Amino acid sequence: MSRETVTHETGAIYEFTPDLEPSATVESGAELTIETRDSLDGAIQDESDVIESVPEEVNAATGPIAVAGADPGDVLRVEIEEIRITEAHGRVITIDGFGLLDGHDDIEAPRTRMTPVGDNGETIAFDDLEVPIDPVIGTIGVAPASESYTTLVPHDHGGNLDTTDMTAGNAAYFPVFQEGAMLAMGDCKAAMADGEMCGTGSEIACDIDVTVDVITDPEFDLERPLIETPDAWKPVASAETLEAACELANEDAIDLLAAEHGFDTTDAYLFSSLAGGLEISQVVDPLVTVRNAVPKEYLSDPF
Amino acid sequence: MSRETVTHETGAIYEFTPDLEPSATVESGAELTIETRDSLDGAIQDESDVIESVPEEVNAATGPIAVAGADPGDVLRVEIEEIRITEAHGRVITIDGFGLLDGHDDIEAPRTRMTPVGDNGETIAFDDLEVPIDPVIGTIGVAPASESYTTLVPHDHGGNLDTTDMTAGNAAYFPVFQEGAMLAMGDCKAAMADGEMCGTGSEIACDIDVTVDVITDPEFDLERPLIETPDAWKPVASAETLEAACELANEDAIDLLAAEHGFDTTDAYLFSSLAGGLEISQVVDPLVTVRNAVPKEYLSDPF
Repeated sequence: MSRETVTHETGAIYEFTPDLEPSATVESGAELTIETRDSLDGAIQDESDVIESVPEEVNAATGPIAVAGADPGDVLRVEIEEIRITEAHGRVITIDGFGLLDGHDDIEAPRTRMTPVGDNGETIAFDDLEVPIDPVIGTIGVAPASESYTTLVPHDHGGNLDTTDMTAGNAAYFPVFQEGAMLAMGDCKAAMADGEMCGTGSEIACDIDVTVDVITDPEFDLERPLIETPDAWKPVASAETLEAACELANEDAIDLLAAEHGFDTTDAYLFSSLAGGLEISQVVDPLVTVRNAVPKEYLSDPF
Repeated sequence: MSRETVTHETGAIYEFTPDLEPSATVESGAELTIETRDSLDGAIQDESDVIESVPEEVNAATGPIAVAGADPGDVLRVEIEEIRITEAHGRVITIDGFGLLDGHDDIEAPRTRMTPVGDNGETIAFDDLEVPIDPVIGTIGVAPASESYTTLVPHDHGGNLDTTDMTAGNAAYFPVFQEGAMLAMGDCKAAMADGEMCGTGSEIACDIDVTVDVITDPEFDLERPLIETPDAWKPVASAETLEAACELANEDAIDLLAAEHGFDTTDAYLFSSLAGGLEISQVVDPLVTVRNAVPKEYLSDPF
């Protein structure tokens, strides 16, 4: 099967809704290259370009892509094979009203810092510091069950998860809530810290190579996104507070451990407190996002 | 200088107070072996032993150890060289009123699971699962500035930080608030997940080899604990909520970056959002604890 290209130029959304219409339809098993634009729609090309307030539309997500045969109750597997930056620079910014330290005395907003790609193509520069390019998909998700969520918001359908593990070499799993799943993604970063404290990483346009597969009648009832890394399975949960997100991510990890080992919930909870553990994805979007890593030594493919 | 032993049998505290009296006094540069008992004072030796409610005294911290020449404004460096478990089993427990999922329908408290050390001496067992022994110092700190904190509480003096990076191969730095610093530590775990969700790791007695050094007139004004790993510097902050702890840990990371690179606060903040990032230590103690990793590529010794 040859690799098919899906581009933001023919379809991109700023809201995940239950009734998305596909801009492309592919078979399960399809190999895709998904072209994305930067999260700010190209508005910032220079440090004199600043964003005064959070735009109504950010994080354009290329798609939605219907995957034939995906029905509610199924799981969509998205293997992330490669993410290639397609601009000569990213940008990291502050916006008034946004970010972990928003409103602190010494934090100036708006401000823009451009992060040019080095001649080696492997780093971005911030002042005289070089940071390895390690691209992250910031926004990725499927059509939700009943509510609608702008692409600024993360929730059980995915969306603006801003999670460093959403990167090449890993696979993401999403619950299918609507026929065709309706996958969309964008909002890439050339580099991002866990937490995404100022509200952005180095925002940049990217091409993303993925393979999509429908898992029909999965053994495990997936409620939220799940990431598979070479070493761990990581349920990803978003909520109003980090504490609430930690509870959800831990509950999901416990369900996975209990299903695999026949533990009751309490034993799975006790075990979850011994290995791997809670990780911060982002603390800045309207809901915040946490994951709970369970090492693969203790958890095999749950589906 | 020969290694000196300090044991919990001749001195251990359940509260970090400003006016601690030392159980031992050592010189800066001293190599110490610090013997600790398990956090529950040996109360649990079998799965039929359970803890009905959080005891008034937990997390016995061996010491306090006065370090000669340590004065307020200095920094105490504690290099953690080795942590050796000294019991044949640890234990992981639930306690009513304690833990991330406390009060959830399916969580039974109290419950005790023993985690025996395997014949290889390198793993503990939980049911049929084996977890590598990777000991963590749960409680470690110095005499605080003005308030007193039981050894259940983490704060700027250290205390019950429950941080997986408080382990062999790393160094911990504490602000010196009182003459002699008054270092104390205990509450070790054979293994612990980031988050310590059920409220404990595998609690176990350990001997800890450390070297203590006073850094006089440090260049950087340390307000809270800081951990040095082979790869990163990690400010450690505790607060009422994870959000507040994230802010403090990020502020500390920003101060370090600004001091090293001559950044203003906003540029340091923007940079902090690109590399390393926020990590969860624990979400269960009366205050919760977060760290902000700054890779050593971008930060040299701040003192």
